[in-house]
Amino acid sequence: MAPPKSWLAIPKDSEFSLSNIPFGIINSKGSPLEKRPAIAISDHVLDLKAFSKGDGFAGLASLSKEHLEVFSQSTLNAFAALGQPVHNSVREYIQDVFSETTSRPEILKDNDALRKEALLPKHETKTHLPMEIGDYTDFFAGKNHAFNTGALFREPKNALQPNYTHLPVGYHGRASSVVVSGTPITRPSGQILLDPTADPKVPAFSASRLLDIELELGCFICKGNDMGSPISINKQAEESIFGFVLMNDWSARDIQAWEYVPLGPFNGKNFGTTISPWVVLPSALDSFRAEKIPNEAKILPYLQESRQDTVYNISLSVDLTTSEGDTTTISRVSASNLLWSFPQMIAHHSAGGCPMRTGDLLGSGTISGTGENDLGSLLEMSLGGKKDIMLTGMHVRRFLADGDTVTIRGVCGEEGSYVGFGQCSGTVASAVPF
Amino acid sequence: MAPPKSWLAIPKDSEFSLSNIPFGIINSKGSPLEKRPAIAISDHVLDLKAFSKGDGFAGLASLSKEHLEVFSQSTLNAFAALGQPVHNSVREYIQDVFSETTSRPEILKDNDALRKEALLPKHETKTHLPMEIGDYTDFFAGKNHAFNTGALFREPKNALQPNYTHLPVGYHGRASSVVVSGTPITRPSGQILLDPTADPKVPAFSASRLLDIELELGCFICKGNDMGSPISINKQAEESIFGFVLMNDWSARDIQAWEYVPLGPFNGKNFGTTISPWVVLPSALDSFRAEKIPNEAKILPYLQESRQDTVYNISLSVDLTTSEGDTTTISRVSASNLLWSFPQMIAHHSAGGCPMRTGDLLGSGTISGTGENDLGSLLEMSLGGKKDIMLTGMHVRRFLADGDTVTIRGVCGEEGSYVGFGQCSGTVASAVPF
Repeated sequence: MAPPKSWLAIPKDSEFSLSNIPFGIINSKGSPLEKRPAIAISDHVLDLKAFSKGDGFAGLASLSKEHLEVFSQSTLNAFAALGQPVHNSVREYIQDVFSETTSRPEILKDNDALRKEALLPKHETKTHLPMEIGDYTDFFAGKNHAFNTGALFREPKNALQPNYTHLPVGYHGRASSVVVSGTPITRPSGQILLDPTADPKVPAFSASRLLDIELELGCFICKGNDMGSPISINKQAEESIFGFVLMNDWSARDIQAWEYVPLGPFNGKNFGTTISPWVVLPSALDSFRAEKIPNEAKILPYLQESRQDTVYNISLSVDLTTSEGDTTTISRVSASNLLWSFPQMIAHHSAGGCPMRTGDLLGSGTISGTGENDLGSLLEMSLGGKKDIMLTGMHVRRFLADGDTVTIRGVCGEEGSYVGFGQCSGTVASAVPF
Repeated sequence: MAPPKSWLAIPKDSEFSLSNIPFGIINSKGSPLEKRPAIAISDHVLDLKAFSKGDGFAGLASLSKEHLEVFSQSTLNAFAALGQPVHNSVREYIQDVFSETTSRPEILKDNDALRKEALLPKHETKTHLPMEIGDYTDFFAGKNHAFNTGALFREPKNALQPNYTHLPVGYHGRASSVVVSGTPITRPSGQILLDPTADPKVPAFSASRLLDIELELGCFICKGNDMGSPISINKQAEESIFGFVLMNDWSARDIQAWEYVPLGPFNGKNFGTTISPWVVLPSALDSFRAEKIPNEAKILPYLQESRQDTVYNISLSVDLTTSEGDTTTISRVSASNLLWSFPQMIAHHSAGGCPMRTGDLLGSGTISGTGENDLGSLLEMSLGGKKDIMLTGMHVRRFLADGDTVTIRGVCGEEGSYVGFGQCSGTVASAVPF
């Protein structure tokens, strides 16, 4: 099928093609104080507040005046709360409005005034956190990562804990520490064991020496549940998903190693988690469904899905750019490398009655493949910090250096109709002196 | 010192004496749709929205018109964000207004109209969550509890993990599951091992059979920090505290036992955490400062406090009431049984740069003493479910039964000037059928 064409110039390699239409929050040179919803298309964004104000949604009768108020908010929460049918009709409407053969040329194609008002060059805008995040939960569904890291600390046959194949293991993360792509990440200080083999163990307070990345896919919730009322795996769980973002769950391995017994990761994780700014809807990814990693365990009914293709074949990549400006792609891996899908994570999360809310963020856990060049963390690439990772420009890393920039990208599809996420990027700033 | 007297009748045993003045959120029979701030005094509440509207704060010049808007909000977040000096001046002003020898009788004592409008009988009001909670973190600072539970699963000499005396161990909880006293708690279902000794381990999906309580003190944050900028232990950490509540961190021990390796508690905890409705300010507790449990470890500088009396001697009690209406006090213990203070928890939490925000909730962890009658969980009272707990009325428990009501109370001081928290209570509802 030939990709749909637009009257707007869309480069063939744009990840914001007419097939995508992801949602975000922007401000602009023209209105710097006003954060508002937008969609990304080609090298432009469509300011949905201006578009709505200028009667851009006049052709979408199903959107009431009340609905239109969601486009005057500074987060996407109110839009998300309207539910998937509304998200999809807005996306399809915008696809039509931008189509070369649009049925509504008067809306934007032939409307110079509204184009000028609402269609902004991306470089004149800035993106912000798309959602007000209620709770953030990070799962551990990347089986290859769980195996690789388990094998570093235990025998390979015991790499996975007994519960791993029975439930999507996860932990509650820190919502306040989630930031949008481009935000600097300060190297955390904390308690670490300078000599982990010493007895007794005596911690020092130090800047982390083992700063790492975690390549993840994030998922925003649009539709929650009442406390005590679980979300069922089929239908309900898929309908509770607003969309997806790329995620880097920065991790301080030395802080984490000392603190995490028995209650899990804490300061080793809560100093920063970066997400990409554009929320890609499930409908934009529907053509890229893929099957999960097979699970040989007998799954309990509340986690059994009626279809198996509930993850996505998104081509993820990780670039490491040194402060000298040398960039190396250190990983390429498909986002389908998960043992558990997001619907399964949602069904499990709410199985005991935990209330999910609009704006909650779920992380997949680190996504790794089974080779050497498709790993989602430096911990795995350096075999637990024992092996050098060779970079372009004669640089060497085992963990991150100050000034390093890590950029995650994710894209699906073919030339002319790519569906991508934009960058999920952050630069490491030196630790605060103490 | 004789307790201060009020023109309002305050029973000698009231925990809401003139020495207290805790803040909460109410609605009332008269205005059921309007949640607004209030303080509790005797058997009444002072509706701060009505009080403010009726010029009740006319005598407090330091409160600007902008400040007064915080009393029209449906949570205490805006009031909390004004900082301790404002909280304290409002509390002292209200103490004066209610004093028998008030310097401002025209404000309320002799103002029939405003008394009628703003001073409501408590039984005509209902309390709600006092704060919009950003993130909820639960610590593990009750050393006796940590030792008791560690000793159930390991030898006593290894009961505490090596990190325990070096840092306040904690984990990120689930903010969406925090509810106000009086909210029913549905028994969670989840994955449990019907036979934990079987090999291989095979989970079943079942209603929890080991539903437990955790007696805790909660702490709300009023003043946060920017990401990357730690809160220092002395001065800053104490100033970041808005006030305290009682907390029951309901726990499903069987769900927790199977899920918690390696990332910590998840569905075993996130089905409900109950807090008491009235936030007691640090200034109200200042006379009840006590010393922490001594720590023999060498504490790192970022956790060293300039004074040692940074916990409180609050008399906590736990009542268990069966569905037949028989009540047994199953525990009495002082809230001073902590190895780490809240300022230490705050300094540790933010040490790596994690941003704290107004409305964040911290739990102390379960508070137990060293005897048999001062334990903070049924897990400890029943020695890991192996010993019957005998209740009034010939009832027996090891864990909670459906219909059980657990009520936590906390009070400081002496007859006539008690400082108390009100009830932290919840009743167990049967599991959702599946």
